[in-house]
Amino acid sequence: MPLWKIHHPVGAYTAEDKKDFSQAIMQVYMAVPIPKFYVVCLFEEVSGDNCYVGGEVHDKFVRINVDQMARTLPGPVIREWWVHNLDVVIKPWVGDRGYEHEFTITEPPFDLWSLNGQIPPPFESRAEKRWIAENKASEYSQAEKLPATITLQHGNTQGGDW
Amino acid sequence: MPLWKIHHPVGAYTAEDKKDFSQAIMQVYMAVPIPKFYVVCLFEEVSGDNCYVGGEVHDKFVRINVDQMARTLPGPVIREWWVHNLDVVIKPWVGDRGYEHEFTITEPPFDLWSLNGQIPPPFESRAEKRWIAENKASEYSQAEKLPATITLQHGNTQGGDW
Amino acid sequence: MPLWKIHHPVGAYTAEDKKDFSQAIMQVYMAVPIPKFYVVCLFEEVSGDNCYVGGEVHDKFVRINVDQMARTLPGPVIREWWVHNLDVVIKPWVGDRGYEHEFTITEPPFDLWSLNGQIPPPFESRAEKRWIAENKASEYSQAEKLPATITLQHGNTQGGDW
Repeated sequence: MPLWKIHHPVGAYTAEDKKDFSQAIMQVYMAVPIPKFYVVCLFEEVSGDNCYVGGEVHDKFVRINVDQMARTLPGPVIREWWVHNLDVVIKPWVGDRGYEHEFTITEPPFDLWSLNGQIPPPFESRAEKRWIAENKASEYSQAEKLPATITLQHGNTQGGDW
Repeated sequence: MPLWKIHHPVGAYTAEDKKDFSQAIMQVYMAVPIPKFYVVCLFEEVSGDNCYVGGEVHDKFVRINVDQMARTLPGPVIREWWVHNLDVVIKPWVGDRGYEHEFTITEPPFDLWSLNGQIPPPFESRAEKRWIAENKASEYSQAEKLPATITLQHGNTQGGDW
Repeated sequence: MPLWKIHHPVGAYTAEDKKDFSQAIMQVYMAVPIPKFYVVCLFEEVSGDNCYVGGEVHDKFVRINVDQMARTLPGPVIREWWVHNLDVVIKPWVGDRGYEHEFTITEPPFDLWSLNGQIPPPFESRAEKRWIAENKASEYSQAEKLPATITLQHGNTQGGDW
């Protein structure tokens, strides 16, 4: 779901740090769950003289942009919880290391998204379940766009928005 | 209209590849049409240890962000078509070269946009037609904000939202 | 409030230029006012062969992305004024130096934003006033989320959306 673009000071993280950081981020989204490969982290070094906070050079600043296209956060309580949730996750790589830090989350439209030539299947559909299991984008059928769990009854279809 | 930010592996593209890629992208938008100079492509190399997909290093991954501020894609059919359309266009530079790839499209507000000090003129206005012809942003008059084709009648103005 | 990501040609700006540019940007937002440290500028060099405008290499092009999460621009008059306002501010570093230039502004959701582990306090709240004075993010109480100026009356609370 998410693209994390992490701007950080030169030399702030080793390759191992970056792998650990990206795996910690991935774990948050595994709780949803979504396919692992939806979670992309790009690290970008920004030297001190290219980073200004309040008009002054800041060489201890980590600025993160999070684009979450796979899911929407509905309602103020969940949104506040999610922000705090992410703050806990990133803490070992930012505050605990003496870096000031800021992140913003955007929610790009779900339907203007493509992965290896496939438009990702609907949330919690059979195809999404299979993508989770296979950890890989692949073609899916019309039938697989149905929800993974569906109960049919006389003249009534349960399943919320489906 | 669009800004394409293309994150790609180190050495994935030659200067000629990048020019060809950017021209293929431009051609898609020429069908709308919009001024050529609305189409901006920025390429950014991301080394393997700065790119993580699902918590693992991925050195064959192309991640594209597309910001389309000049036009909105109205309705689900057009949106799905557009995504597939872009997938066809980028294929020679991603899937056909063995790169996994992902893109998301956002639609920044049309009215918070500036080009060489000019707010771009309304869609299909006389000024936009002139910008297309001149391939250059320049000052335009109030009269040029009118639609290129307008039919006046007794007590009625045709032309949709104008 | 804002994150300015400034893509510019290699060598376009000295460290001093960048500091001056970021301070000019900061001054615009001081008129709102907001805390100084809300204003973040990241400069990124893009070499000519990584920048294409209308399908052609462009080595004199400055492309700026502005993310404004702290305030919304309400209404067309204010939005147009703001774009012109920013054009005046950036002119000495773009048009006056012979660079073509383009910017777009997005408005990421205010409530999906975090600064040093703190969700920024409401606009013009007591906490925000304190953040402005201290130029630093810090914990704030429930009481500090109230507007800085509030007038209570019989059976009525003035203060707009509060």
